[in-house]
Amino acid sequence: MNHIVLLSGGMGQRLWPLSTLTRPKQYIRFLTDEQTGKPCSMVQRVWKQLAQADLAENSVICAGMRQQEILRGQLGSVGIALEPEGRDTFAAVLLSCSYLKSCKGASDADTVCFMPVDPYTEQSYFELLKRMPGVLSESGAEIVLMGIRPRFASGSYGYLVPGRRGKGYLVVDSFAEKPGVKEAERLIALGALWNGGVFCLRVGKAMGLLEDRNLPTDYDSLCREYSSLPRDSFDRAVVEKCSSLAAVKYSGMWKDIGTWDAASKVLDGGTRTNCVEDASCRNFCAVNETGIPLVAVGVKNLIVAASSDGILVADAGMDLHLKQIISGLEARPSFEEKSWGTSTVLDFFREGGAEYIVRELRMHPGMELNSPGANSTGSVSVLKGGGFVSSHTGELELLPGACFPVPAGEPFLLRAGKAGLVLVLTQKGQPGSFSCQ
Amino acid sequence: MNHIVLLSGGMGQRLWPLSTLTRPKQYIRFLTDEQTGKPCSMVQRVWKQLAQADLAENSVICAGMRQQEILRGQLGSVGIALEPEGRDTFAAVLLSCSYLKSCKGASDADTVCFMPVDPYTEQSYFELLKRMPGVLSESGAEIVLMGIRPRFASGSYGYLVPGRRGKGYLVVDSFAEKPGVKEAERLIALGALWNGGVFCLRVGKAMGLLEDRNLPTDYDSLCREYSSLPRDSFDRAVVEKCSSLAAVKYSGMWKDIGTWDAASKVLDGGTRTNCVEDASCRNFCAVNETGIPLVAVGVKNLIVAASSDGILVADAGMDLHLKQIISGLEARPSFEEKSWGTSTVLDFFREGGAEYIVRELRMHPGMELNSPGANSTGSVSVLKGGGFVSSHTGELELLPGACFPVPAGEPFLLRAGKAGLVLVLTQKGQPGSFSCQ
Repeated sequence: MNHIVLLSGGMGQRLWPLSTLTRPKQYIRFLTDEQTGKPCSMVQRVWKQLAQADLAENSVICAGMRQQEILRGQLGSVGIALEPEGRDTFAAVLLSCSYLKSCKGASDADTVCFMPVDPYTEQSYFELLKRMPGVLSESGAEIVLMGIRPRFASGSYGYLVPGRRGKGYLVVDSFAEKPGVKEAERLIALGALWNGGVFCLRVGKAMGLLEDRNLPTDYDSLCREYSSLPRDSFDRAVVEKCSSLAAVKYSGMWKDIGTWDAASKVLDGGTRTNCVEDASCRNFCAVNETGIPLVAVGVKNLIVAASSDGILVADAGMDLHLKQIISGLEARPSFEEKSWGTSTVLDFFREGGAEYIVRELRMHPGMELNSPGANSTGSVSVLKGGGFVSSHTGELELLPGACFPVPAGEPFLLRAGKAGLVLVLTQKGQPGSFSCQ
Repeated sequence: MNHIVLLSGGMGQRLWPLSTLTRPKQYIRFLTDEQTGKPCSMVQRVWKQLAQADLAENSVICAGMRQQEILRGQLGSVGIALEPEGRDTFAAVLLSCSYLKSCKGASDADTVCFMPVDPYTEQSYFELLKRMPGVLSESGAEIVLMGIRPRFASGSYGYLVPGRRGKGYLVVDSFAEKPGVKEAERLIALGALWNGGVFCLRVGKAMGLLEDRNLPTDYDSLCREYSSLPRDSFDRAVVEKCSSLAAVKYSGMWKDIGTWDAASKVLDGGTRTNCVEDASCRNFCAVNETGIPLVAVGVKNLIVAASSDGILVADAGMDLHLKQIISGLEARPSFEEKSWGTSTVLDFFREGGAEYIVRELRMHPGMELNSPGANSTGSVSVLKGGGFVSSHTGELELLPGACFPVPAGEPFLLRAGKAGLVLVLTQKGQPGSFSCQ
């Protein structure tokens, strides 16, 4: 049997302000579902492609604690190998395999294909994925990789350098990591491929790596000892040291949309919600998630992205080093997508030694939410829709215009009615009550 | 005796999104008070300069109904000739003179200097203003104008073309309105000056213009018949037809900050509140009134302005025709500065045939506010500070975390305590309840 694991890491800094700590880039709904025309995220697009290739049933996701809610909100009920903390891909791969064995009934002889959560590809990518377990058997290799046909001599990707050719696969002779443009040209002439970050191995191989380190192969036990795994990438720790590697070649469309420059090309002009531009704008990419209008006049080669968390204006050709810039910004709460709905920060400020926050919570029909902000004083106002609030004093029906105080430490439960529930939550708290970083 | 009238017109479109219908550009606090270092508006700067020249006591403002609250909030108690509707400067000048006679005890023999509310000048401008009534007598002219020494051959200003010179003044021979650059060069060689929009005349002259039209000279009566005055500029209707005109020459600093291009030069890089830019930005002007951070990377010759009403990104060199662009935007409520404090729109949306709005009201200490949004259902939550709410059921003290419903049609009064009061008001209403245009 073959399994698929989507590796969903990422700290959310590269596509700021749409991506944040609470919403890494793979969850931003800035793509368009080709069938429904509705906005969708990278993870939703990839999951749909997996389903179309009949692979979703055997797919799980490896992600951090913070992503659990947003994952369930976007994909519904999916298997998640939950990383107790972020420790890079070597640890994530071992954890995922132990999850497959303990929770999904996988055996050591089963194969598993790991893939990143954010490749923007066509359907043939997933058909190729299906062939990788077969190549693992036929080639006798320990690991099978996916090589991407290079579109240009990029100096900043990793390359797989081929040796002899098998039937439908290549033997990988060596690796070249970020070789520079000149060397990339030479490698491409030799038939080298971009390393797509996809690898197929047997579950038993990962189990062996755990046993080598005297670590438990059971998922729950491994979660407890997760911090004793080294922080390393699976590529560096295992793949590049492996003497028996094969690769399949993918020649279809493949885009890396992990940066603004790349994302702006996929967006093809951007999502124009609430955005007006005059006729003299050129090569202008705009994403506006705020409720206020964005007006552009005469701008060229510009990326503008606005959300309730910030506004970015950037030259389209720049290699953006956003990580450093945004690390200097004040820590403030940000937009969150949860299983029950969304939370948008309408205002946040610090004055006189206290923090104040105004949030709009949009709850999906029938969903429940436990005491938002249990440690601070505030109140809830119903803006739209209806539902119920229950506490030790009983249950109260909520209609538009209703409001009730939220005293510190008194638990209650909100339940959205059939039409959903839009609430405004205002709160005052100690420093650090609402901001995270 | 001499009076000063500040003409405060403007629809607030040219510096959008900082300027709006409810906050014309002269009220935006994007300048810096040189003494206190605090932000101030154009009207506050000019009023302070008038006070420094000992002119404030005899100064009044001619402004529209919508501006009354913001004027009192920014200047305190000042005389306002209130235009019943916007009808251009000919009507405004006549109304102002009738206000001076009816409400400020002016006589027909008194002189009055009209000036725009938004010139960015040095103090000598106001000293020159003081000399204009004297020149009116000495020259025997019916109207004395202020000519501005041209800094460059602008094709888009009006020019005063001089005839013979008097002692400390020029006789104005003719006018040239937006002559084009070539002709401007020729006129400047002849000694022509920019028309600064300042004019001095006798109150009686304006009264005569009313009598010519069989209109009342009494302020209250004129207000009632205001719509029968023609829509015309005072320049076109009176000044340019006048055979006896003198001008004084102003050679000091004079900037027109009515457009983004001009404003960006005065702002000298912009107000950098909550704004981070990388080292590769050049000629970048940013004004950020939102609470969220603005990040700029590698942008050049760019103006970015963000407020709770919108985001503008524009090429710095463009002649912005914002009026046309923003007229296409959906009508939505916007930031308002009132005598009691400010109102910021945190969210506004239309769904299912209703309008929903979330506003943050910041009330100054001790100020009162009557039932905000009397015709819609909603609730008030206290975010910060304290105060009292009174209704027919009695008076209630307000502390952070307090909230109360605001049923449609039930009047109440809010009063801010000594530390001020910050409230969040959420409301649902019929279409058109909150949007204006």
